[in-house]
Amino acid sequence: MEELHRQRLDRLSQALKEEGLTQMIVSDPLAIWYFTGVDVQPGERLFALYARADGGHKLILNKLFTVACTGLPEVWMTDTDDTVGILAQAVDPSADMGIDKNWPARFLLALMERNPGVRYVNSSGCVDRIRAVKDEDEQEKMRAASRINDACMEAAAAYLREGLTEKEVSEYVSKLYRDAGCEGLSFGTIVSFGAHAADPHHEPDNTALKKGDCIVIDMGCRKDRYCSDMTRTFFCGEPEPEYAAIHDLVREANEKAEAMIRPGVRFCDIDRTAREHIEAGGYGPYFTHRLGHSIGLEDHEFGDVSSANTDTVKAGMTFSVEPGVYLPGRFGVRVEDLVLVTENGCEILNHVEKRWKTV
Amino acid sequence: MEELHRQRLDRLSQALKEEGLTQMIVSDPLAIWYFTGVDVQPGERLFALYARADGGHKLILNKLFTVACTGLPEVWMTDTDDTVGILAQAVDPSADMGIDKNWPARFLLALMERNPGVRYVNSSGCVDRIRAVKDEDEQEKMRAASRINDACMEAAAAYLREGLTEKEVSEYVSKLYRDAGCEGLSFGTIVSFGAHAADPHHEPDNTALKKGDCIVIDMGCRKDRYCSDMTRTFFCGEPEPEYAAIHDLVREANEKAEAMIRPGVRFCDIDRTAREHIEAGGYGPYFTHRLGHSIGLEDHEFGDVSSANTDTVKAGMTFSVEPGVYLPGRFGVRVEDLVLVTENGCEILNHVEKRWKTV
Repeated sequence: MEELHRQRLDRLSQALKEEGLTQMIVSDPLAIWYFTGVDVQPGERLFALYARADGGHKLILNKLFTVACTGLPEVWMTDTDDTVGILAQAVDPSADMGIDKNWPARFLLALMERNPGVRYVNSSGCVDRIRAVKDEDEQEKMRAASRINDACMEAAAAYLREGLTEKEVSEYVSKLYRDAGCEGLSFGTIVSFGAHAADPHHEPDNTALKKGDCIVIDMGCRKDRYCSDMTRTFFCGEPEPEYAAIHDLVREANEKAEAMIRPGVRFCDIDRTAREHIEAGGYGPYFTHRLGHSIGLEDHEFGDVSSANTDTVKAGMTFSVEPGVYLPGRFGVRVEDLVLVTENGCEILNHVEKRWKTV
Repeated sequence: MEELHRQRLDRLSQALKEEGLTQMIVSDPLAIWYFTGVDVQPGERLFALYARADGGHKLILNKLFTVACTGLPEVWMTDTDDTVGILAQAVDPSADMGIDKNWPARFLLALMERNPGVRYVNSSGCVDRIRAVKDEDEQEKMRAASRINDACMEAAAAYLREGLTEKEVSEYVSKLYRDAGCEGLSFGTIVSFGAHAADPHHEPDNTALKKGDCIVIDMGCRKDRYCSDMTRTFFCGEPEPEYAAIHDLVREANEKAEAMIRPGVRFCDIDRTAREHIEAGGYGPYFTHRLGHSIGLEDHEFGDVSSANTDTVKAGMTFSVEPGVYLPGRFGVRVEDLVLVTENGCEILNHVEKRWKTV
């Protein structure tokens, strides 16, 4: 087992102790990779790291998985075994059990039936708080993924022209990422023209770009497993003055929020800063989502930038800052960067010009 | 609400009654689309169809989702709400609750805390048994997706030549699917050369094809939401006689299994037929997985073709028949078709030649 993984597992044992737990089932394949280096896509099959506060971890595996030896004890099963029964026997049936937040109900309900009488608690916080603070190696990978994203956003903007469809632009972005050696997208690329931009999660269709449209491009790649994520909004031809002013307002909200990020600041206060700026401009009701989300191995990780999150920012955290204004049926704009929190501020991982420009 | 959806929801109410349940949380976005036509990618957000045996269904939605009106009552929430609290109030707190098999533990554990004292049961069978039997419209889409898959497999086979890497072949397959108008892949294309083929789930890498290699291509596309899935194994140059004989053995196992499929036959008996043929050939221990899996809106749906599944086959079901032999460190072969069960037999949805050929 690599030293890196041993350290991360030790942190997990410590976190379980602090949570008052002796055991936990980690089921997220990305988290298991993070803690052990074991890389499995289990599909619908049972796959888990059984983590213990005393360090007696085990891997729960299906014979169909091909895994390198980690030195951890392994519990094997096949598709025709009573898989949850095997798991139930591999754990301590008399102690409270921490559960990974996304563990499917079919496993959880079956385990509760096998080992009743103990408390089952969502203990993903133990994993998530560790993963939220990126170590040096991860920080460099986050920078590299966003560098590629910068270059691809510039290339995508240069490609834009009247008559292109949203789908053509999104496919072009995929090609740019492939050519840059990315493993794939960190999420489905959003390309929204005109009124489509009023839906923050619009899926690209065959609508063609025309004069007067705004163009929202929200895109991210996955490189060496780490995610990037950035949004820019352009205009096809000169924008209506109201739309240009909204773009300025949203950009300023993004910049004000980024300017205040440093260790100790609360996520909710970052959200509030951006929101108050947009409210002051008169568009508060049209900023309909949280300001941002944490990011790393996944596009959306634990810890969002919202009014509900009173946690404070720590050095090494990476998250998005993405205010937006959405006028139903008419128009939308969003400006998004990723930031990496440093000892005394933050490093903005994206460098594509944020002021509006026409294509 | 469309008649199609009303019928499907009525079937769900009926299935809940038969299961002795009055209510269920359906959380799988594909299932919700299947029952209502509402198409949402909720990411980590709460999204559910609250289904009731008495027909009093509701949609549980986040304001961030854009949905067309279905006529169903809607319960709305935002990212900063206590979302599970809102859900807990929308359901009957005093009756047993059916739960979707893949509902994440973070929602389930939180709901159990809000509404304790009732039984929570995995009731996905109610949904899955309905979805397992494809209606006419779905059958036609399954055929169409496999027709595209046939054409793309032929094109991929014609593309194979010494020196190409696994990744290049898999990217070529993606391009073929895009050109054919598919939405995407139904799973990551498997391209395995030589010893890599001994891992049934090998991920394509930069290994180049060389004389003497076997070539396993396991690929599927998604067209109009429905999945295809097929495997063929080729050889680069003349195969070693043992490998050619194994290919014949595996193909015969595939054909024997397909020949017996008709309503009333048990899934486990189909598996046994293929397995016994491979055992008789002396390679039983090297056929390390179940014979197949159901397929439709998802590549792997409820109901597999394995020794553990004693259910009987019904007309309208679609599943894979994919025996394989894997010699660790040396070689692997798999031959897979999709089948659609008819009133008195089955329709094999793939038509690419199954006998081995050299490239």
